Amino acid sequence: MFLTRSEYDRGVNTFSPEGRLFQVEYAIEAIKLGSTAIGIQTSEGVVLAVEKRVTSPLIEASSIEKVFEVDDHIACAMSGLIADSRTLIDRARVEAQNHWFTYNAKMSVESVTQAVSNLALQFGDDDADPGAMSRPFGVALLFAGIDNKGPQLYHMDPSGTFIQYDAKAIGSGSEGAQQALQDTYHKSMTLKEACKSALTILKQVMEEKLNSSNVEMGTVTKEKKYHMFSKQELEDVIKDI
Amino acid sequence: MFLTRSEYDRGVNTFSPEGRLFQVEYAIEAIKLGSTAIGIQTSEGVVLAVEKRVTSPLIEASSIEKVFEVDDHIACAMSGLIADSRTLIDRARVEAQNHWFTYNAKMSVESVTQAVSNLALQFGDDDADPGAMSRPFGVALLFAGIDNKGPQLYHMDPSGTFIQYDAKAIGSGSEGAQQALQDTYHKSMTLKEACKSALTILKQVMEEKLNSSNVEMGTVTKEKKYHMFSKQELEDVIKDI
Amino acid sequence: MFLTRSEYDRGVNTFSPEGRLFQVEYAIEAIKLGSTAIGIQTSEGVVLAVEKRVTSPLIEASSIEKVFEVDDHIACAMSGLIADSRTLIDRARVEAQNHWFTYNAKMSVESVTQAVSNLALQFGDDDADPGAMSRPFGVALLFAGIDNKGPQLYHMDPSGTFIQYDAKAIGSGSEGAQQALQDTYHKSMTLKEACKSALTILKQVMEEKLNSSNVEMGTVTKEKKYHMFSKQELEDVIKDI
Amino acid sequence: MFLTRSEYDRGVNTFSPEGRLFQVEYAIEAIKLGSTAIGIQTSEGVVLAVEKRVTSPLIEASSIEKVFEVDDHIACAMSGLIADSRTLIDRARVEAQNHWFTYNAKMSVESVTQAVSNLALQFGDDDADPGAMSRPFGVALLFAGIDNKGPQLYHMDPSGTFIQYDAKAIGSGSEGAQQALQDTYHKSMTLKEACKSALTILKQVMEEKLNSSNVEMGTVTKEKKYHMFSKQELEDVIKDI
Amino acid sequence: MFLTRSEYDRGVNTFSPEGRLFQVEYAIEAIKLGSTAIGIQTSEGVVLAVEKRVTSPLIEASSIEKVFEVDDHIACAMSGLIADSRTLIDRARVEAQNHWFTYNAKMSVESVTQAVSNLALQFGDDDADPGAMSRPFGVALLFAGIDNKGPQLYHMDPSGTFIQYDAKAIGSGSEGAQQALQDTYHKSMTLKEACKSALTILKQVMEEKLNSSNVEMGTVTKEKKYHMFSKQELEDVIKDI
Amino acid sequence: MFLTRSEYDRGVNTFSPEGRLFQVEYAIEAIKLGSTAIGIQTSEGVVLAVEKRVTSPLIEASSIEKVFEVDDHIACAMSGLIADSRTLIDRARVEAQNHWFTYNAKMSVESVTQAVSNLALQFGDDDADPGAMSRPFGVALLFAGIDNKGPQLYHMDPSGTFIQYDAKAIGSGSEGAQQALQDTYHKSMTLKEACKSALTILKQVMEEKLNSSNVEMGTVTKEKKYHMFSKQELEDVIKDI
Amino acid sequence: MFLTRSEYDRGVNTFSPEGRLFQVEYAIEAIKLGSTAIGIQTSEGVVLAVEKRVTSPLIEASSIEKVFEVDDHIACAMSGLIADSRTLIDRARVEAQNHWFTYNAKMSVESVTQAVSNLALQFGDDDADPGAMSRPFGVALLFAGIDNKGPQLYHMDPSGTFIQYDAKAIGSGSEGAQQALQDTYHKSMTLKEACKSALTILKQVMEEKLNSSNVEMGTVTKEKKYHMFSKQELEDVIKDI
Repeated sequence: MFLTRSEYDRGVNTFSPEGRLFQVEYAIEAIKLGSTAIGIQTSEGVVLAVEKRVTSPLIEASSIEKVFEVDDHIACAMSGLIADSRTLIDRARVEAQNHWFTYNAKMSVESVTQAVSNLALQFGDDDADPGAMSRPFGVALLFAGIDNKGPQLYHMDPSGTFIQYDAKAIGSGSEGAQQALQDTYHKSMTLKEACKSALTILKQVMEEKLNSSNVEMGTVTKEKKYHMFSKQELEDVIKDI
Repeated sequence: MFLTRSEYDRGVNTFSPEGRLFQVEYAIEAIKLGSTAIGIQTSEGVVLAVEKRVTSPLIEASSIEKVFEVDDHIACAMSGLIADSRTLIDRARVEAQNHWFTYNAKMSVESVTQAVSNLALQFGDDDADPGAMSRPFGVALLFAGIDNKGPQLYHMDPSGTFIQYDAKAIGSGSEGAQQALQDTYHKSMTLKEACKSALTILKQVMEEKLNSSNVEMGTVTKEKKYHMFSKQELEDVIKDI
Repeated sequence: MFLTRSEYDRGVNTFSPEGRLFQVEYAIEAIKLGSTAIGIQTSEGVVLAVEKRVTSPLIEASSIEKVFEVDDHIACAMSGLIADSRTLIDRARVEAQNHWFTYNAKMSVESVTQAVSNLALQFGDDDADPGAMSRPFGVALLFAGIDNKGPQLYHMDPSGTFIQYDAKAIGSGSEGAQQALQDTYHKSMTLKEACKSALTILKQVMEEKLNSSNVEMGTVTKEKKYHMFSKQELEDVIKDI
Repeated sequence: MFLTRSEYDRGVNTFSPEGRLFQVEYAIEAIKLGSTAIGIQTSEGVVLAVEKRVTSPLIEASSIEKVFEVDDHIACAMSGLIADSRTLIDRARVEAQNHWFTYNAKMSVESVTQAVSNLALQFGDDDADPGAMSRPFGVALLFAGIDNKGPQLYHMDPSGTFIQYDAKAIGSGSEGAQQALQDTYHKSMTLKEACKSALTILKQVMEEKLNSSNVEMGTVTKEKKYHMFSKQELEDVIKDI
Repeated sequence: MFLTRSEYDRGVNTFSPEGRLFQVEYAIEAIKLGSTAIGIQTSEGVVLAVEKRVTSPLIEASSIEKVFEVDDHIACAMSGLIADSRTLIDRARVEAQNHWFTYNAKMSVESVTQAVSNLALQFGDDDADPGAMSRPFGVALLFAGIDNKGPQLYHMDPSGTFIQYDAKAIGSGSEGAQQALQDTYHKSMTLKEACKSALTILKQVMEEKLNSSNVEMGTVTKEKKYHMFSKQELEDVIKDI
Repeated sequence: MFLTRSEYDRGVNTFSPEGRLFQVEYAIEAIKLGSTAIGIQTSEGVVLAVEKRVTSPLIEASSIEKVFEVDDHIACAMSGLIADSRTLIDRARVEAQNHWFTYNAKMSVESVTQAVSNLALQFGDDDADPGAMSRPFGVALLFAGIDNKGPQLYHMDPSGTFIQYDAKAIGSGSEGAQQALQDTYHKSMTLKEACKSALTILKQVMEEKLNSSNVEMGTVTKEKKYHMFSKQELEDVIKDI
Repeated sequence: MFLTRSEYDRGVNTFSPEGRLFQVEYAIEAIKLGSTAIGIQTSEGVVLAVEKRVTSPLIEASSIEKVFEVDDHIACAMSGLIADSRTLIDRARVEAQNHWFTYNAKMSVESVTQAVSNLALQFGDDDADPGAMSRPFGVALLFAGIDNKGPQLYHMDPSGTFIQYDAKAIGSGSEGAQQALQDTYHKSMTLKEACKSALTILKQVMEEKLNSSNVEMGTVTKEKKYHMFSKQELEDVIKDI
């Protein structure tokens, strides 16, 4: 995979002769080891669906959290290093709260994503934001939310780059899942179709058999704001596919 | 064990080309050198049982402590580096006290676990929490407690990841013990059965013959809160198995 | 490409025996991996046109931003590491605002460029400007603006060197594009011709087929100040070429 | 001795792939180069006996101190790096004094040991206790004292681990001495028997012939508190063995 | 070029066994890659003439600045790293202003040179002047000015050494140019002869054909103070040679 | 001399697998390159005699100082790195003065030695005493003094270890000199005999012929306090041997 | 030249197994690359004579300064790195001024030398005097002065060691010059003879022919205090030899 693996790949801020920063690229690899997460944006709202790796039957599956509420109009799904995601999501929540307290208005989805991205890209600098790390964050995030511009889905990777997507998959099964999304996604999808589609694709890329315990799904809509699917709601969708 | 051992495994915050942080994985190995600890959650309460390594007959066995009281509704068992566990358990105690003083309410088991996890995952960053270390903590913890959600058992590893379990084993004998837990655990277990089961499994995985001096057992229940088994109480359970 | 690759190329502030600072040269390489950007200065105003790499049909192309408004009389196009560009453009905006608040006059294009350059050249020094990095910025910028001296186009590279150009291309296709600019540019070009010329050249050097989604174009003129081309305006120019 | 000696043994906080911290293990080796020290706890009190290495007849033997008074109810014997022991014993004294001034009660033996241990385990962290070092302390300590729980003997090693013992030997002759202690120790030993036993065992493991100049012995008892044996008292015990 | 290239040449403050500081020597090499600059002192005033490297016909040649006004009685020409020169010249300007404000008298040419030299020689020390760098400055400067002692020309190199010259050349063509200066310079030269001589020599050592766009020339005289030659004035001199 | 020279000998605080700190051992070697110094304690007082290396006839021998007054009741002789000794002796003087000002009593010889030792053993720790160094001090000291306990002689080495001696030699000739001291020293020696003995032994181990210019001798007695021998006094002793 | 060149010579504070600090020895080598300087002390006063390396006929020889006035009763000659000498001589001047302002008495020559030496020996320690460097100073100094003790000459080398000499030579020609001084120096020399002798010896060891432009000579006497020889005075001495 690394044809030109060289001596430039350990310094977090050392350019290789081709101008690459290897530690950032390796951090992106960390995400390929993580569980798969899928986000789909529709005109009704955005859905996030994530695989949970329940490696033992004695695990209380509900304690594995992969979809987080940032504010009541923004949710976030993660793949990669759990610890790193916590720092970034905490930042997202604090920024959203601060914005609300300061301006008495909901922070836009893009602004939240950018605030988190600002933290993510400061790795390796001493006098940076106190939350910044000495290495890139080993985590990718999907931000789903609704604001004045309507439903939106943003993807952020370890380099701090963020891009808006109609539908995006991250994690170990992302390659297959993204292809599947490309095949099935259309602009006029309903949110219900999107939920079904997300679980169908997760089912294809997960090693274990998908059931209501090893996936997590949440939606952000105008009416219900952030809504996490209950076990029963999940089973209703699953039996449809 | 490490097929791709490489030059990436000494920097505490250096990604390998596959996106792995080796020092975290090595810290997890440190736990496999530690004494075995078992936790089982029942509807009546949670039990923690730990092996003590009494390497010399002249050791005062009671001075080896492996189960700690965090608050009167939360206990903690450890495996790995003793010194590291002390820092983490001190943090747990301080957080629980602060919560009580600030909110006049007991801190939830999950919140305590998360607070400790927040400390554990800050390794290697200079401007982090003053309690953070320059390497991952070489210790795994089992948090057992009771709060509004009922009895709960949490496992935290050196990466700062924590997951709720019905029953969990850590330490050198964890592999066999976890398998045994999976075979014997059932949701309707009584606390008494759980205690007996914990010691039975410890007996199987310990190198030395189990007796009332080389194990420690504590329970957290609604009625008795945190309760450490006396030598006599231990012997009562042991003679049953 | 690097005939004398040596042991001097990892220290960000280490001279090679020939007096070269390799990390700066490698940072310049990073820009050759970036998307192509073109700037042309005419007597009517300046145009900036940039390729957008829309790697997936599910990407919301409008969320990829490569041309930025610094102030209403100055725009900036970038090529290279997106995260790095954000720091530099934020600085440009802050400097321009500060100047306005302090002197109640628009900051000149050259002054803005110099302010950003001052930040760029401080890499690797601890007690430098808090925004400075431990490595050179891996980004090249084109500043386009209008002030008392008329329309101006400045190019700044990772070494902090900035030079005024009549027309300049940066990024992966810069070699071919610069040659094309040299062939077509003349002092009496109208802004309209410049816009058409910029897209024509981009079309030649882009791998994908140019359309109104994968390019971005903005102008700075006396009358309209900073103006970003709408999808429709872009298509109008594209159908002309 | 080190079968798997590897590249992981120089970083003070670097885990080896097996989860070991080599610098701590090497610090423990430093103690095996030190003079032998023995501690025995009886129901009457605790005795500490230490070998002094008088390498030249011109040395004033009394200036070599290996048994220290921490408080009038606690003594401490050391083996390993003299300089390191001084830092730790100073800390013990300060903690004991502070406790007395703050609570108007004698600090317990276990609390003193734990306070010193807290200092010992902070090696290698910058923002730790100002007394902490950049490497593990190369010293082992035996704390002997009497408090409400009666006479107690604690052993602390460079990792900061401390355990209560009935009888414990440290230093170059510790292996043989510990075996001898195991053979001769019994719970009903009188303090006098313990003193005699300690010197007898020291005599066996010391290279030089034991006399009243090259050993030091002290006891902590309820009646006499900390008592250092005079030359005459030592000779009285020696002529008995 | 480096017969004894060794392992001593990367530490900025590491002596080689022969007592050399290689990084300083390498910084001096950086200047040999720079454009050629010439300074000549006459009894009427001092002239500075510098080659500009206009690598593209689209470059706005006037934006490449190589001769700077420090104060109205002192000018400075540079060769080497542009970014480094900026820091040094900014310092020169600030020092000259401070002197004026504090003493209400013009700062002498030597004092300005020494102030800049003080900054240049502090490389590699943390607690040095905040403007100091972690490596030697890769730039050579020619200070030309007039004060109570009459017209003076100073040369400063990366080691911070400064010496007064009658005539001095720096940069890639310095070897040939210095020889030519030695041949043509005489104490009774007029300023006009010096200007002509400077351009004549530049013409000989420049790769490109000298014209009014790719050289810059300035003089400091009693009457006109600092004076930068206009395009027309340059052409007048050029047609003479 | 170093059978097991290894990779562990450059880190100032790195244990070798055998638990040794090589940099301390190497610092002790530095003293074996120093001039020889001898101290002898008698019941009348203590004498210090030191070789001076007058490498050129043009050296003003009196400017080489090897015996220092710490206070009027304490003197100090040194061998090893002169610069290092200055830091330590300055500390001794300051401590002695502070003690006098604070307690209005002379500081004991042992306390002065311990204060210096405390400084010596803090090498390599950042937050240590501001006088501490990043390496062990390369110097050995002999403290000679008189206090309530009578005349005393202390030896301190780079590890910070200090021991009281009847007679002690340090420096390049220490091996032979210490043997000679062992042969000639007896408890009932007069101070005069000690002075003669010290010079006799110095004469044996010095490469150059001993005379009143290349030795320095001082005594500390109850009556005369610190007394440095004049040239004449030295010659009186020398002609006796 | 370096028989045992080893891996210990790059760390500024790393002892080699023989107890040597190589970086200090290498700094001393730097002086052997410097210009030759000679100092001679007579009963009338002290003379300092230094070679100037005028490498180009266009150099204004008077701008090369090698003999400096510290105070009106103390002068200093240097050999080695010019930049380093500046820091040390600035310190000497400040110390002499401070002494004068504080005590209203001239600082003694020895005290000035010691103050500079204190700065010189602090290399490599972070919390040292702010003027201290991260490496030894690469310069040797000769301090010449007159105080209550009469005329004195001190030599200080990079290790911070200083010794009083009757006559001393430093720099590239020091070996031959020192031998010559030893042959010609006598206690009853007049200052005039010393001046002549100094230039005669310089003439022998200099590569270029000695003239009034390439040497500098200064004296410190009771009557004339510090006196720098004018061109004419120099020529008067030169024509005598």
